[in-house]
Amino acid sequence: MSVEFRTASIEDLPAIVAMIADDSIAADRTGTYGPEHRAAFEAITADPNNELIVAERDGEVVGTMQLTCIPGISRRGALRMQIEAVRITAALRGHGLGRKMMEWAVERARERGCAVVQLTTDKRRRDAHRFYDSLGFVASHEGYKLVLD
Amino acid sequence: MSVEFRTASIEDLPAIVAMIADDSIAADRTGTYGPEHRAAFEAITADPNNELIVAERDGEVVGTMQLTCIPGISRRGALRMQIEAVRITAALRGHGLGRKMMEWAVERARERGCAVVQLTTDKRRRDAHRFYDSLGFVASHEGYKLVLD
Repeated sequence: MSVEFRTASIEDLPAIVAMIADDSIAADRTGTYGPEHRAAFEAITADPNNELIVAERDGEVVGTMQLTCIPGISRRGALRMQIEAVRITAALRGHGLGRKMMEWAVERARERGCAVVQLTTDKRRRDAHRFYDSLGFVASHEGYKLVLD
Repeated sequence: MSVEFRTASIEDLPAIVAMIADDSIAADRTGTYGPEHRAAFEAITADPNNELIVAERDGEVVGTMQLTCIPGISRRGALRMQIEAVRITAALRGHGLGRKMMEWAVERARERGCAVVQLTTDKRRRDAHRFYDSLGFVASHEGYKLVLD
């Protein structure tokens, strides 16, 4: 499978929102494509520590993830890269695209000088756990969330 | 206990590094205060999406945490606040200071318009789990890390 990874443009955004919403866990809370997603896109692209990435295949957006570089005092002042909102389009799941995308993310983290790559995944996503385990990630932490009203 | 929470200054940094290092899990990897911590401090303070916070009591730094605002497409383009590197000085643990600090962080998240507050904590930190549970955080996610060479 020939896939290119690149920074998302505003034209990719409807496809990105559709992928994030096409998910049993995240569907309700994503909403349909609208101005709030465009405002978020502008905030992401204005911040050099954030990158919204898409995977493109035959001119179509087939995957997405967001990479955030976080400077910190821990680990001798290390940068860490956090990965959020990882999605592969339904028709292409199970074909190795997710693995390629994560390998690309790890390479990007090295380029940016990050010492750690981190992500959280819902405890209900058993397939995702096997996937991240197979990539060498270690589920060493509890991931806590507090949703504000 | 009368405590003030404020943005850290460079003068606070040795105390912050000492608190991060005074920890059975993080000791080895934190290092002693040096130029790499100062460089990280500069990177944090240069980024409006990052805030390094200290708790001060009677002129002494007694707690620290880092807050990172992350824009994202998920949850209708919501901002989320991530909390990293939470520490309370050893002599004051168990006196409610951590609770005050986290309540302050949640209030700060509301001020900045965040829809979610999130953090991860090492699975070995059982006391921390009870603490975050008691604050209403939900351990809904697995927290994965990949340490790069």
